Amino acid sequence: MDIKDMLNLVKSGEMEIQEAEQLLKDLPYEDLGYAKLDHHRALRSGFGETVFCQGKPDPYLVEIYRKFYERDGEVLGTRASEEQFELVKSVVPEVQYDSISRILKVEQPEKERKGCVAVCTGGTADIPVAEEAAQTAEYFGCHVDRIYDVGVAGIHRLLSQRDRIRNANCIIAVAGMEGALGTVIAGLADCPVIAVPTSVGYGASFHGLSALLTMLNSCANGISVVNIDNGYGAGYLATQINRLAVK
Amino acid sequence: MDIKDMLNLVKSGEMEIQEAEQLLKDLPYEDLGYAKLDHHRALRSGFGETVFCQGKPDPYLVEIYRKFYERDGEVLGTRASEEQFELVKSVVPEVQYDSISRILKVEQPEKERKGCVAVCTGGTADIPVAEEAAQTAEYFGCHVDRIYDVGVAGIHRLLSQRDRIRNANCIIAVAGMEGALGTVIAGLADCPVIAVPTSVGYGASFHGLSALLTMLNSCANGISVVNIDNGYGAGYLATQINRLAVK
Amino acid sequence: MDIKDMLNLVKSGEMEIQEAEQLLKDLPYEDLGYAKLDHHRALRSGFGETVFCQGKPDPYLVEIYRKFYERDGEVLGTRASEEQFELVKSVVPEVQYDSISRILKVEQPEKERKGCVAVCTGGTADIPVAEEAAQTAEYFGCHVDRIYDVGVAGIHRLLSQRDRIRNANCIIAVAGMEGALGTVIAGLADCPVIAVPTSVGYGASFHGLSALLTMLNSCANGISVVNIDNGYGAGYLATQINRLAVK
Amino acid sequence: MDIKDMLNLVKSGEMEIQEAEQLLKDLPYEDLGYAKLDHHRALRSGFGETVFCQGKPDPYLVEIYRKFYERDGEVLGTRASEEQFELVKSVVPEVQYDSISRILKVEQPEKERKGCVAVCTGGTADIPVAEEAAQTAEYFGCHVDRIYDVGVAGIHRLLSQRDRIRNANCIIAVAGMEGALGTVIAGLADCPVIAVPTSVGYGASFHGLSALLTMLNSCANGISVVNIDNGYGAGYLATQINRLAVK
Amino acid sequence: MDIKDMLNLVKSGEMEIQEAEQLLKDLPYEDLGYAKLDHHRALRSGFGETVFCQGKPDPYLVEIYRKFYERDGEVLGTRASEEQFELVKSVVPEVQYDSISRILKVEQPEKERKGCVAVCTGGTADIPVAEEAAQTAEYFGCHVDRIYDVGVAGIHRLLSQRDRIRNANCIIAVAGMEGALGTVIAGLADCPVIAVPTSVGYGASFHGLSALLTMLNSCANGISVVNIDNGYGAGYLATQINRLAVK
Amino acid sequence: MDIKDMLNLVKSGEMEIQEAEQLLKDLPYEDLGYAKLDHHRALRSGFGETVFCQGKPDPYLVEIYRKFYERDGEVLGTRASEEQFELVKSVVPEVQYDSISRILKVEQPEKERKGCVAVCTGGTADIPVAEEAAQTAEYFGCHVDRIYDVGVAGIHRLLSQRDRIRNANCIIAVAGMEGALGTVIAGLADCPVIAVPTSVGYGASFHGLSALLTMLNSCANGISVVNIDNGYGAGYLATQINRLAVK
Amino acid sequence: MDIKDMLNLVKSGEMEIQEAEQLLKDLPYEDLGYAKLDHHRALRSGFGETVFCQGKPDPYLVEIYRKFYERDGEVLGTRASEEQFELVKSVVPEVQYDSISRILKVEQPEKERKGCVAVCTGGTADIPVAEEAAQTAEYFGCHVDRIYDVGVAGIHRLLSQRDRIRNANCIIAVAGMEGALGTVIAGLADCPVIAVPTSVGYGASFHGLSALLTMLNSCANGISVVNIDNGYGAGYLATQINRLAVK
Amino acid sequence: MDIKDMLNLVKSGEMEIQEAEQLLKDLPYEDLGYAKLDHHRALRSGFGETVFCQGKPDPYLVEIYRKFYERDGEVLGTRASEEQFELVKSVVPEVQYDSISRILKVEQPEKERKGCVAVCTGGTADIPVAEEAAQTAEYFGCHVDRIYDVGVAGIHRLLSQRDRIRNANCIIAVAGMEGALGTVIAGLADCPVIAVPTSVGYGASFHGLSALLTMLNSCANGISVVNIDNGYGAGYLATQINRLAVK
Repeated sequence: MDIKDMLNLVKSGEMEIQEAEQLLKDLPYEDLGYAKLDHHRALRSGFGETVFCQGKPDPYLVEIYRKFYERDGEVLGTRASEEQFELVKSVVPEVQYDSISRILKVEQPEKERKGCVAVCTGGTADIPVAEEAAQTAEYFGCHVDRIYDVGVAGIHRLLSQRDRIRNANCIIAVAGMEGALGTVIAGLADCPVIAVPTSVGYGASFHGLSALLTMLNSCANGISVVNIDNGYGAGYLATQINRLAVK
Repeated sequence: MDIKDMLNLVKSGEMEIQEAEQLLKDLPYEDLGYAKLDHHRALRSGFGETVFCQGKPDPYLVEIYRKFYERDGEVLGTRASEEQFELVKSVVPEVQYDSISRILKVEQPEKERKGCVAVCTGGTADIPVAEEAAQTAEYFGCHVDRIYDVGVAGIHRLLSQRDRIRNANCIIAVAGMEGALGTVIAGLADCPVIAVPTSVGYGASFHGLSALLTMLNSCANGISVVNIDNGYGAGYLATQINRLAVK
Repeated sequence: MDIKDMLNLVKSGEMEIQEAEQLLKDLPYEDLGYAKLDHHRALRSGFGETVFCQGKPDPYLVEIYRKFYERDGEVLGTRASEEQFELVKSVVPEVQYDSISRILKVEQPEKERKGCVAVCTGGTADIPVAEEAAQTAEYFGCHVDRIYDVGVAGIHRLLSQRDRIRNANCIIAVAGMEGALGTVIAGLADCPVIAVPTSVGYGASFHGLSALLTMLNSCANGISVVNIDNGYGAGYLATQINRLAVK
Repeated sequence: MDIKDMLNLVKSGEMEIQEAEQLLKDLPYEDLGYAKLDHHRALRSGFGETVFCQGKPDPYLVEIYRKFYERDGEVLGTRASEEQFELVKSVVPEVQYDSISRILKVEQPEKERKGCVAVCTGGTADIPVAEEAAQTAEYFGCHVDRIYDVGVAGIHRLLSQRDRIRNANCIIAVAGMEGALGTVIAGLADCPVIAVPTSVGYGASFHGLSALLTMLNSCANGISVVNIDNGYGAGYLATQINRLAVK
Repeated sequence: MDIKDMLNLVKSGEMEIQEAEQLLKDLPYEDLGYAKLDHHRALRSGFGETVFCQGKPDPYLVEIYRKFYERDGEVLGTRASEEQFELVKSVVPEVQYDSISRILKVEQPEKERKGCVAVCTGGTADIPVAEEAAQTAEYFGCHVDRIYDVGVAGIHRLLSQRDRIRNANCIIAVAGMEGALGTVIAGLADCPVIAVPTSVGYGASFHGLSALLTMLNSCANGISVVNIDNGYGAGYLATQINRLAVK
Repeated sequence: MDIKDMLNLVKSGEMEIQEAEQLLKDLPYEDLGYAKLDHHRALRSGFGETVFCQGKPDPYLVEIYRKFYERDGEVLGTRASEEQFELVKSVVPEVQYDSISRILKVEQPEKERKGCVAVCTGGTADIPVAEEAAQTAEYFGCHVDRIYDVGVAGIHRLLSQRDRIRNANCIIAVAGMEGALGTVIAGLADCPVIAVPTSVGYGASFHGLSALLTMLNSCANGISVVNIDNGYGAGYLATQINRLAVK
Repeated sequence: MDIKDMLNLVKSGEMEIQEAEQLLKDLPYEDLGYAKLDHHRALRSGFGETVFCQGKPDPYLVEIYRKFYERDGEVLGTRASEEQFELVKSVVPEVQYDSISRILKVEQPEKERKGCVAVCTGGTADIPVAEEAAQTAEYFGCHVDRIYDVGVAGIHRLLSQRDRIRNANCIIAVAGMEGALGTVIAGLADCPVIAVPTSVGYGASFHGLSALLTMLNSCANGISVVNIDNGYGAGYLATQINRLAVK
Repeated sequence: MDIKDMLNLVKSGEMEIQEAEQLLKDLPYEDLGYAKLDHHRALRSGFGETVFCQGKPDPYLVEIYRKFYERDGEVLGTRASEEQFELVKSVVPEVQYDSISRILKVEQPEKERKGCVAVCTGGTADIPVAEEAAQTAEYFGCHVDRIYDVGVAGIHRLLSQRDRIRNANCIIAVAGMEGALGTVIAGLADCPVIAVPTSVGYGASFHGLSALLTMLNSCANGISVVNIDNGYGAGYLATQINRLAVK
C-alpha cells in the first residue's frame, strides 16, 4: 500500500490535504451511480472485474461492457442470455458468446497459458456449469483438461482417467444429484479439489441442495465447496491456486 | 385366503354366524389394551413380529417379551438399552444383549441359514447400524458377509472387495456424512442394493439428512433407501429378497 | 471377473502388455467426449443402459439414440418430451413414444416375460409415474399387474385387491400427498414393497417431500423408498428382485 | 354482549363514567403482573382456563394453581413434571398427578359426562399424547373410548374396531412416524377427525414433522390437524364438537 | 354393518358363496380402471364424492363428471380451470363455473340449508380460498356468513364483527402471510375454528409455510388446521360440525 | 382516546345509545365487502393506507384507487404491474408509475421533506427493492440519500461513503446473496439500521433465505430486519424513526 | 472523523509519519490476542461494548470484565450463568446478577433516564427474553414500561393496555409460538415496533422459527424483527430510537 | 502408477499371477476388520491418515493410535475428549492433548515449516475451530499467523490487519452467526480464502446453517467453503495450497 508515499507527499507539501482526502475516497473505483466499477482490481489481485449479466437492466449492461472494453481491451461476463449478446454486440462488435457456458466476452488473442486445471463432470447435464468454470480458468490463463461424464455410478470410467486427474494443480469436480464425484476424486488425487454442486436432478435433489450437502460432508481430505451452479467461482479459485503452483 | 373355507362352514351349519363374526374380528392379534400382538404375522409373512424397545414403558416391555417368548420360544427386539436388558432378563433369563447393535433377543439354536446378504459400511462409526442390519438378517435365516470401512474417499478399499460384493443376493450399504457408498456399490454389483443413511457426522450432515438425500438421488440403478439409522428395516427387506433368490 | 484370464494371456505372451493396459482402460465404455456410453452394462448386469432424456442437448440425444440402436437393436429412454420424440424419430424411425409415461423407446418384438410385478397408485394423478415404472419393468422382461386408484382414504378399494397384491414377487406403491399407500400394502403382502413418492399434491406436500417422509417413516416391514417421481428406478429395482425370484 | 346494558346504566346515571371506563378495562382478567388470569373464560366459553405447566417458574406456578383452585374449586394443568406435582401439592393438597399424560389437576367429583369421543393411537409409544387428549376431554365432560395400537401397518387391527370408531361424535387420531392413521379412520367414519402428530420416531421423522405433513396432506375428507404432541388441544376441540352434537 | 345380514342369507342358502364373495369385493365402487368411483360414499357419510379437477387428464375428467351426473343428478368439483369448464360443459351442459373459487359443479335447485358457518379472511387476496370453502359448505347444506378483510393488523375491523362471529356453529379463518387471524377469532368465539393458511404473501411466507406454522402454534383453544389453500377441506369439515349442531 | 367524550355525550343525552353503538362499530373503516378501507389511518398514525397491488383483482384495484384518490387526493401503491398502471390510469388519469420500483401513485405536489434516510445496496440488482424503500420514505416526507453498489466484497467502496452514512437518522441496508451489508454499516453508524434481504442470487441463496438469516444473525448492534424484498416496510419504518428524530 | 486533523498535524510536522501510521492502526481497540476490546465504541456510538457471556472461556471472561470495569466503571453482560456470576464476582465484587434475564452487570448509580420504551410479552414464559430487553434499555438510559402476558388469544387483555402502548416512543413485542403479538400492537400504535420471536413453544414451533416467520410476514406497518430470543438486540435498538425521539 | 512394472514382472515370470492378484487387492491398507488403515496415504499424498476420534469405541481408538504410532512415529487425531486422551495415553504415553482445539497427537520434534497460512476468526468463540485448523496446518508443515476477533461488525479491527492478511499464501476465515468475515477478507486479499462456518450463535443461526449459507453466497471471488466447524478440513486444504506455493 502506498499510503506512506502519499503521506510523504502531504508532508513535503507536494500534495494538498484536500487532494489527499479526495484520493483516498475516489481512487478505488469509477462511480456510475447504479454501479461502482473497480478498475483497480486487476492491479490489486491480478484479475479484472467480471460482469454477472443475469438480471442487469439493458442500459446498465451495455454501458458496463463498453466502459470495461474501452479501458482494458477485454471483458469477461457470465450468465448472459442470447438477447444480451445481441444487445452488447451492437455496441461492442468484438464480443463473443458461447451458448453452453453462457459466457459473453472479449478476450485478447494469444494469451499465454500456464499450469493445468482439470474440470470433471458426473454427467452430460453438468457440462454447462463445467464450461463456465473451464472457460473462466482459460480466460485467466490456465490450461484446462476437460474430463466429462465420469460419475461414480460407473466407477471404471473415472478410474481410467486417473493419470489425467493426477496431472493437474487443481481439480474442479462438477456434479448434481448425489454429487459424490468430488470425494472419489479427492481420494485419488493429492491436489486441492473444488466441488461444484449443480442444480441438475429432480425430486429430492431440491435444486442442488442434495449435491451441496454431499460435498460439504465429504469424507475426503482436500476438498471445498462453492455455491450451486457457481462454475465461475470455481474457475476463479482454481486459477488462484494454479498461479501459486506455477509462480 | 380361507374366508371361503369359513363361509363354507357357515353355509353347512358347522360354524355359527356369531362365531364367524368373532373369528373375523379376533383372529389377527392378541389385545393387551396398550398393545395388540400380532402372533399371526409369522404365518402370514414368514417373519415373527419384532419389538421396537426404545421408549416402551418398562412393564409393557417386559410383558411383551414374556408373551412372545412363551408362545414362540424366540423373540427379536431392537434399540434396547442396557437397563432394558437387565429388566427383561429378570423375567426371561435366556435373553441376550449385544451392546453394539443394541439387539435384545432370544434365538433358537442351530437355525438353518441360506443365501448371502452383504453388509458394507463407509466407516467404523457406521458399524452399530450395520450390525443391527446384519444380526436381523441372520436372525431371519441369512448368511451375512460383513465388509466394513470401505468408504468411497479411499476407493481402492472398496474395489478390492468386488468379489465378495458380487457374491451376495442383496447388499446393504450403510453410510453417514456424504453417503455415496451405495451408488458406487450399485455400479459394481447387479443385485438389489439397500442404502441405509446413518446419523454419523456433524454440521451440515444434519443428523443424517445429507446421507439420506445423497442416497435418494443416486445416479446408480437398482438402489433404494430406508430411514436414517434403520438397520433393522434394511435387514428385514434384504431377507425378503434373499428368500426370493434361494426359494 | 476375467482379469485372471487376461493376466494368463499376458504371462503366456499371447497378449502384449500395452494391449492389456489399453484393454483395462478402454474396455468399459465408448467415449463420445460429452458422454461415455456403457455398452458392457448389459453383459455385466443383464440390463442395457437407459437414456435420461430430460435436459439432454438435441444433438447429443439423437447421437446417443443412434449409437445404442445401431449396436443393440433396442433402446429405452425416460422423461422424453414430444419434441424430443420428433427429433429422434427423424434418425431412428422405429422409435415409439408414450405421452403418459414419457417413455421413448425401440423395443424388440415378442420379448419373453417372466414373474409378476404389481404396480399400485393412490390416485389417478399418480398414473404417469406408475406407467414409467410399469413400462420399465415390462421392457426388462416382467409381467406387470396395474392396480390404480386404491388410496388409503377409501381402504375398501385396496382390500378388495388383496389377492392380486399377494400374487406378485415385488410391489411398487406409487403415491403423492400423504403417501401412506406403501405401508398398508406392506402390511398385507409378504414380498418387498418399493415405495415411490410423487410430486402430486399442493401446499404442504412441498412437491413430494410429504409423501417421501411418510414412506421413509413407514411402520411396516419390507419397504424401501426411491426418489420422488422416480418410476424408472422403481421399475428397474423391481425387475432385479423379480429376476431373483424366477431364476 | 352487555355493553348496551352498561350504556343504559350510564345514561340513566346509575353508573358513573369513570366506573364504566374502569369496568371496560378490568373486567376480563385478574392481573398478577407476570400473568393475567382469565376467570371469565368459563362464562364466555364454558371452559375454565388451563395451565400449561412446562417452563413456568415455581412461584408463579404455585400461585396460579392456588388462585384457580380457590375461585373455581378445580383446575386443569398439562405438561407437568413430577417435581411440579410435589410443589403444587404442598399448597393444594387435593391435586392429582398422572405420570403418563403428565396432567396435574384437581377435579370435582361425579361430573356428568355426555356424548362420546374416540381416541385412537398408531402405536404404544403414542399413548402419553393420547392420554393428554383423553383426560382433557373427560375433564370437560365427555365419555372417551380408547382404541390404542391400531396403526395402519396391520390394517386388520383397525378394521376390527370399525363399530367403536363409528360410534363417536368426534375421533382423535394420534400417530407418529408416518402418521397415516387419521386418513384411514376418516375414510371409515363420517364424523370429524382431529389428527395429532406425535414426535415418536427417529431419523427422517424429524421430531414429528413427517407425521405432521402426512396429516396435513391427507386425501380423506373431514380431517384437521393440531400441533405435534398437542393432545390437550385435540381434547379441547373434540369436546367443543361433542358438545355441539349432544346439545 | 350388514355383514350379518349377508351371512344370514348365505346360511339360509338364499345367497351363493361366490355371490357373497363378489359382493364383498365389488360393492363399494365402480371401477373405471384409471379411477374407482365411490358411489356409496353418500350413503356412508352423507356426502357425495368430490372431483379434484387439477391435473386430471381431459378424457378422464369428462367421463367422471358424466358418470356422477348421470347417477346423482349433481356433482361438485374443485380447482377447475376455464378450459376444463368448457370441456365438461360440452358433455354436461348444466355445469356451472365460478372463476374466483374455481368450483365447477351441477347443483340441484332449492336445496335446504341449515345452521350457520362463518367464513373470515385476513385480506382481499385470501378470498378465492375462502370462496372454495364457503361454496363447499353451501353445496353440502349450510348457511354461510362471509366476513372478509378483517386481518389482525387493524383489529377494530374484526372486533366490530364479534356478533356475527359468535353466531356461527363453526368458523373458518382463512389467512396468508402471518396467519394470526384464527387465534384472535378463537379467543373471541366458543365454537370450533378451522384455520386455513393460504399461499398469499412473498419472501419469508414461503408459499404459505409461515401462515401454516402460525396456525399450528396457536395459543388459542379450539382451533385446528388444514393444508395450505385447502378451502374445500375446511368447508367439508365445517359442514360435518354444523350438521352435528343442527341435528 | 375520545371514548370518554362520547360517554359524556351519552350521559347528557346528546347522543343516543344506538348511535353510540353504531359509532363504535362503523367509525374505523369503509366497507366495500371484499375490502375494508381504513380512512382513519392517517389521523391515527400520520400515514395514509397503502395499496398492495400484486394479486388484487382488476375491478377491486380500480375501485380502491378511485376511493382513496377521491377522499385524500393522493394514494400510494406498491408492486404494481405495467398492466395495472394502464388500468388505473383509465380511471385516475393523474396516476404515475415507476417501472423500477413498481410504485403506482398519485402524490400531491411540493410536499415538505424533513430529516434524512440513507438507502444503501450491496449491488446493482438490489436497486428495485431499494427504490421501493426510497420512494416510500420520500412519499411520507423524508429526504433520501441513495448510496448504491457498496457491497462488502469491495469494502473500500463502502468506507469512502462513511460521511453520508453517518449523516442519516436511519439507514436502510438492502442486500441479497450473503447480505452482510447491514452489519458493516451498523458497525460504522450510530443510528438504527433496517436490513432488507433481497431475493437476488441463485443456488444456495434460496430466494433470499441466505441474506435473511445473515441479517438476523448480525453481530452488530442497532440492526433489525424486515421480510425478503420488503422495501415498502423498510421505507415506512424508516420514516417513523426519522419523524421521531426531527419532531 | 478527524483524519483531517491528523493530516494537518502531519503536514505541519507536529506528527511523524510513522506515528500517524501507527495511530490509524492501533486507535480503535485494545488487543488481548483472543479478543479486541473496543473502548472507543462509547465515543463513537454513545454505547459501551457489551459482553456476550455464553460460551466465553472462564479466564477470558474474567479478564474482559476486569478490563471494562477498570476503564469505564461499569459493564453490561448478557446470557451469563450462575457460575459465571460467582467467577466474575471474585474479581469484580460490585457485579450484580439477575437470574431471570441472565444479565450480569455493574451499573453506575443514579443514571438519568429519558423517554419511554414499552416491553410487551405474549405469555409468562416470554418474560426472560423481555427482561433482557427491558434491562438493556434501562442500562442505556430509557424508562421502561412492562406489559406482560397480553397475548392475542385473549385480545381484551391487550386492548385494555392501549393507553400505555400509545405512550411509548418505541415498543418491543416479545412472543413465542405463533408470535402474532407484534402485528396487533403495530396496528394499535404509531411508533416503531421491534418484534422479538422467542423459542418458547414445542412441536411445530421449531425452536422459535414459527414466531420468527410470523413476525417477518406481519401485515402491519412499522414493524421489524430481530433474532430469536435476542432481547439484548431489541433493547439496544429501542434505545437508539428512543434517543432520537428525546434528543 | 506402477501397474506396468507389475505386469512386466508377471510377463517375465518373476511374479506369480496369484501373487499379482493378491498385491492388487492388499497393497493399499492394513485391515483390522472394523477399520482399514491407509498407511500408503503418506506416500500417495504426502499426508498421513488422521484419526477422527469422536464416536470411536474405546478399544478401536486405542488400537488405531498404537498402530499408527508404531509405524509412523507420529499420529494426528481430532475431536478427542479428555477421557479419550487419558485412555490413549495409557498405551501411547507420548501423546499430547490440547483442550481448546481438542487435538490429540504425537508429533515429531523440530519439523520444518514453510510458507504461511493465516487463520482469522470473527469472534472469540470461534477460536476452538480456528485452533483445529491452525494446529492441523502446523502439523503438516505450515507457518500459521493467527488473527483473532476481527469480525466485520467492527471493520476497523480487520482493516488494521491488512498487511498480515496479504502476507499469507492461503487464508482461513472462521466465523459463526452471520459469517461475513470470509467475503471481506477475500475482497482485501488476492490468495485463496477457505471459509469455515461455525456453530457459534443461537436462534436463527440454526447451528451454523446461517453462516454456511452466507459463505456459499459470498459475492467475493476466490473463496470456497467447508463443513460447519470443520477446522481440520480447512487446515488440510490450506496446507495443500501452501505447498503448491512454496514448492
